Amino acid sequence: MKRIGMLTSGGDCQSLNATMRSVAKTLYGNLEEVEIYGFQEGYKGLIYNNYRIMKPSDFSGILTEGGTILGTSRQPFKLMRVPDANGLDKVEAMKENYRKLKLNGLVILGGNGSHKTANLLREEGLNVITLPKTIDNDLWGTDLTFGFHSAIEIATNAIDCIHTTAASHGRVFIVEIMGHKVGWLTLHAGIAGGADIILIPEIPYDIDSVAAAIKKRADQGKRFSILAVAEGAISKEDAKLSKKELKEKRSKRIYPSISYELGAQIQEKTGQEIRITVPGHMQRGGPPCPFDRVLSTRLGAAAAELIMKDDYGYMIGIKNDRTTRVPLEEVAGKLRYVEPDAPIIKEAKLVGITFGD
Amino acid sequence: MKRIGMLTSGGDCQSLNATMRSVAKTLYGNLEEVEIYGFQEGYKGLIYNNYRIMKPSDFSGILTEGGTILGTSRQPFKLMRVPDANGLDKVEAMKENYRKLKLNGLVILGGNGSHKTANLLREEGLNVITLPKTIDNDLWGTDLTFGFHSAIEIATNAIDCIHTTAASHGRVFIVEIMGHKVGWLTLHAGIAGGADIILIPEIPYDIDSVAAAIKKRADQGKRFSILAVAEGAISKEDAKLSKKELKEKRSKRIYPSISYELGAQIQEKTGQEIRITVPGHMQRGGPPCPFDRVLSTRLGAAAAELIMKDDYGYMIGIKNDRTTRVPLEEVAGKLRYVEPDAPIIKEAKLVGITFGD
Amino acid sequence: MKRIGMLTSGGDCQSLNATMRSVAKTLYGNLEEVEIYGFQEGYKGLIYNNYRIMKPSDFSGILTEGGTILGTSRQPFKLMRVPDANGLDKVEAMKENYRKLKLNGLVILGGNGSHKTANLLREEGLNVITLPKTIDNDLWGTDLTFGFHSAIEIATNAIDCIHTTAASHGRVFIVEIMGHKVGWLTLHAGIAGGADIILIPEIPYDIDSVAAAIKKRADQGKRFSILAVAEGAISKEDAKLSKKELKEKRSKRIYPSISYELGAQIQEKTGQEIRITVPGHMQRGGPPCPFDRVLSTRLGAAAAELIMKDDYGYMIGIKNDRTTRVPLEEVAGKLRYVEPDAPIIKEAKLVGITFGD
Amino acid sequence: MKRIGMLTSGGDCQSLNATMRSVAKTLYGNLEEVEIYGFQEGYKGLIYNNYRIMKPSDFSGILTEGGTILGTSRQPFKLMRVPDANGLDKVEAMKENYRKLKLNGLVILGGNGSHKTANLLREEGLNVITLPKTIDNDLWGTDLTFGFHSAIEIATNAIDCIHTTAASHGRVFIVEIMGHKVGWLTLHAGIAGGADIILIPEIPYDIDSVAAAIKKRADQGKRFSILAVAEGAISKEDAKLSKKELKEKRSKRIYPSISYELGAQIQEKTGQEIRITVPGHMQRGGPPCPFDRVLSTRLGAAAAELIMKDDYGYMIGIKNDRTTRVPLEEVAGKLRYVEPDAPIIKEAKLVGITFGD
Repeated sequence: MKRIGMLTSGGDCQSLNATMRSVAKTLYGNLEEVEIYGFQEGYKGLIYNNYRIMKPSDFSGILTEGGTILGTSRQPFKLMRVPDANGLDKVEAMKENYRKLKLNGLVILGGNGSHKTANLLREEGLNVITLPKTIDNDLWGTDLTFGFHSAIEIATNAIDCIHTTAASHGRVFIVEIMGHKVGWLTLHAGIAGGADIILIPEIPYDIDSVAAAIKKRADQGKRFSILAVAEGAISKEDAKLSKKELKEKRSKRIYPSISYELGAQIQEKTGQEIRITVPGHMQRGGPPCPFDRVLSTRLGAAAAELIMKDDYGYMIGIKNDRTTRVPLEEVAGKLRYVEPDAPIIKEAKLVGITFGD
Repeated sequence: MKRIGMLTSGGDCQSLNATMRSVAKTLYGNLEEVEIYGFQEGYKGLIYNNYRIMKPSDFSGILTEGGTILGTSRQPFKLMRVPDANGLDKVEAMKENYRKLKLNGLVILGGNGSHKTANLLREEGLNVITLPKTIDNDLWGTDLTFGFHSAIEIATNAIDCIHTTAASHGRVFIVEIMGHKVGWLTLHAGIAGGADIILIPEIPYDIDSVAAAIKKRADQGKRFSILAVAEGAISKEDAKLSKKELKEKRSKRIYPSISYELGAQIQEKTGQEIRITVPGHMQRGGPPCPFDRVLSTRLGAAAAELIMKDDYGYMIGIKNDRTTRVPLEEVAGKLRYVEPDAPIIKEAKLVGITFGD
Repeated sequence: MKRIGMLTSGGDCQSLNATMRSVAKTLYGNLEEVEIYGFQEGYKGLIYNNYRIMKPSDFSGILTEGGTILGTSRQPFKLMRVPDANGLDKVEAMKENYRKLKLNGLVILGGNGSHKTANLLREEGLNVITLPKTIDNDLWGTDLTFGFHSAIEIATNAIDCIHTTAASHGRVFIVEIMGHKVGWLTLHAGIAGGADIILIPEIPYDIDSVAAAIKKRADQGKRFSILAVAEGAISKEDAKLSKKELKEKRSKRIYPSISYELGAQIQEKTGQEIRITVPGHMQRGGPPCPFDRVLSTRLGAAAAELIMKDDYGYMIGIKNDRTTRVPLEEVAGKLRYVEPDAPIIKEAKLVGITFGD
Repeated sequence: MKRIGMLTSGGDCQSLNATMRSVAKTLYGNLEEVEIYGFQEGYKGLIYNNYRIMKPSDFSGILTEGGTILGTSRQPFKLMRVPDANGLDKVEAMKENYRKLKLNGLVILGGNGSHKTANLLREEGLNVITLPKTIDNDLWGTDLTFGFHSAIEIATNAIDCIHTTAASHGRVFIVEIMGHKVGWLTLHAGIAGGADIILIPEIPYDIDSVAAAIKKRADQGKRFSILAVAEGAISKEDAKLSKKELKEKRSKRIYPSISYELGAQIQEKTGQEIRITVPGHMQRGGPPCPFDRVLSTRLGAAAAELIMKDDYGYMIGIKNDRTTRVPLEEVAGKLRYVEPDAPIIKEAKLVGITFGD
């Protein structure tokens, strides 16, 4: 009998259920005896031993369902070693629950922060396999994370909708796109949506060069411009600040987010009417797109295969269209950024997209 | 030879092109000779004589296209009688251009404000036919306006996306929905999206009763709640204020919109984590839904039929699934509100939806 | 304690779950004590007493789910009085199970055939409330059935997809659309999709006039034509045949459906390349559109309200945007057809759509 | 002055316009002087000198438009050397028109057949750059072709719709998916749609093993099964036949396509009710998905860059997420098949998908 724990951790995204379904179907279908323990709301479930034993039917019909049937929560890595309000040592609690339930392994679907905790559990002797979950696509060790392409579709659809209204009114529109500290989502949705200007954290922007690009379009008789702006976009000026200085500066910001600040600056510099759209959490919701469902199915099967071989300590990623395993210690704590001189950036510039640099 | 002017005025919405296509196809197909003059950017085009003579092919392939091929702009009714920067009398200019071009009639696609100007032009002796354009569905004299159902689809999709993330995280989410001063869009999208609480201008809310509804759900073990909130939603308190008092109070508001104010109040009263999503201008963009395309085709054909009969001075509406003409003087200046005791409200309450009253 | 049976009967369609959810939420929320008995696979479940007692959570999260959580099956009305293979009298069995379970009432979601059986059960003394389920929109006594607008969206999307390929290749395309014996679905999807020719059962077509319309378009330089053809479309010739003659003629038909026969005839008469697309069962699948979700919520609430008043023997319909109850004996056995001279037909003709008459 | 010809050839697919837009925007934006000659309806336009000089605005707003603004047609390679009805030598005519217009290069968007002709033109001394267009994804020399992922989305949506109706009725459904002689599209859509059985040309199927898989599911209490079947799927028996024998056998087939034959066989062997859906040409229509738009933008920019360098004779492909150039002589005449033991096949089998082998 194999006993496998499973949990989803951090911000939710599309295709979590599709991934768990694939792990579960592979285990149920290829092992004589297996029991899957679903921990509720991420690491919290493991800490407080809040779980239910799953049935095969729990994983049926969830391929296309958004969200996660296990629930999730954010449990910051830096608080993992800090005892909870009742003095409970969280890491020890997780280890104890794992042992008590006689688990053979633990499947963790998580993003960047969750991988640090996953690696910690591995260091503490638990058998851990992780799967790369995030719309940000910022996990080191894999070309793609699931959720990324579903989020691209939603963000692109937002730009598509804005396109017709921008064109009708001759306005400048900013669409603010998620992605945390990296620009993957904004870059792809921006190109797919035909944005004129794309601002991402990896390429700090110069506000004058952004304004100039908008003016140039107006001078060419183009009545509107669309900016795809990453929530993490940063000006050249701010990029020079220390982390502390930036934090202090931002704490004084009167705008709810970068787009509003940018919008005010552009309006001042160009005199053009600006509108701002922030699709926000919509980008992580709804059913996974077909691309993500295939990716999730492949990653989940590969994860289950390692479990069947009792081979733990890896994140399952995909590289050059092949599923691959990456040692957890290599993944944890690293971010994968867009390279400012990547071919896709060069191609986007050839087509006429401005990055404000 | 019949010469017909055409313009789209006010905020854009879906199905403007589908409607113009229908007018044009009907005129081209049923009249020996017809010339359509497309004025650019709404009344502005008529004021400054900025037009182009359209070709049948201009109306080809636009049934599914969002926005408006003529462009649009907002020209507030109350400024119509105020001369422009160069001292030009706008109303006289419109009349003169109409006469100079020897137009037989003018087709105006517009919302509430645009209908006041349309009626003014009628009073000034122009032959006017209007078509009810707005995602707000607030035009008097018609059961439905085109754009409304397309916007419902986008707003509902926003709630759908939010649903999965709200359920996964156990959060309270506010989705702010357009609709100007009326609640049609929020009411329909809220019911379609399975919102737990719907707040619309026509039913002022009591913040305590809203908070109580959220707490009740939490007490029943429901981990999340979704609020569909109209951009024009108003508290019972504020509803008692005079227009002037309200304006003054709102001018001091630190929140970008009602949702943020409401969110802060709910967080304080319930202790629950709140997230806010504002799909904004997305709601008026993108291709029209099939419902709107059928509606637009019907309204456009009926408008063209009146033109063919030289019968002017009406808005074309739809009542009980029949296209109908309504005298412009009856339409102008009136809003169609949701009735607080309408059957649909009663049914929504039966299903368990709270309106905060 | 109120005990209510529930079943879904006949071909499935979108919004069955949304409708049941509304009935259930209204009953659970407004009655002290209620038990809902879900019969499996339509009348079959009632005949063979195959049911489960539902929980409130069974109806949670199903607003957007296609299909039916109860399953469905076709049980032809004309076989209801014929004993089954084991000699069981089906009608008596249904009555007995109803009594044995001490049901207070029975909610039946069904289409045309299912309403005949529902009325029979009413005549036999059972308390029955029905809800109008069908993509065909052919139920007498209601302006709309749920499923109809969701199916319009799918059929319209099929035409939209075909549009771009037809235009690129300059081909004549036939899109065959469901709808059983009536033309509602084809009429609406055809107009929404911008079809050039629409053929529906209510307006028998003349093949020469269809071919002439295609040739006329070609002569005008239009490289393609799109025909939206109802699965029940019929030629003028065939419309004159008796039921028996038609059946005999069709039994000899070498084509899988009307579209193929029509396609061959058009190819012969016009010399143009024809392609045929049959989206088929796709049209009844997938999530309900927002329009249907609102309709289902309203109908379901109104049905539950009657149950709460112990007022049985009706179908809940919608007329002029108000939910209404219609005596079952008036509904059963009647079809609602498109009127060949309805305003919508007249408007479609004005826009240039040909009906082949 | 650079003069560049452009044409789209063969069956249309999504993202043709997006690709041409990218080529054009890159050329217009980076060259002092450039003229683009758009040949109408594929090679036919080049043969008969049917072209128009494009304007930058022709490429504006077409990123999301399905089809091709240039039109397309199939011109079989094997007829290229055969004179036309008027004795015209097609290849010589193309060469002559190319010279007469003083073209510097020719951009051809085409699939497998079109690449043979493109290579022929290269051999005849023309400067040719090609772009890989097909929903089949069967072009040698690139990981991906544009159109492929858009078609996956449509085919997957078809399976999704069928899923709910199959589950409600407990039926076996066959969804026939395009893909010509290869299984890429069916494989991806099948996995994404959660098909139970996937049949592709590269893995000939055994009808008994297909029937056994369906029976096994029924025995496990699963009321329905979904088969994703490639239009080119082939039985083990047929796979052993010579090309000639197969052609002869198929010419006698009474079924319109493989799905109908398969359906009849399964019905006979399992006794289960079978339904068949053939989305057909829908799969190549409608707007490109965001994935394809990004791909097209990248490929188009890379193609234009080669033109700017006067470096001809290549197809632009993508390998490991980098655009790449592949000599035309290597591409022409080769198909890229799914490898029967590819990792994705292995992973699909792990999850429980049956391939009938």
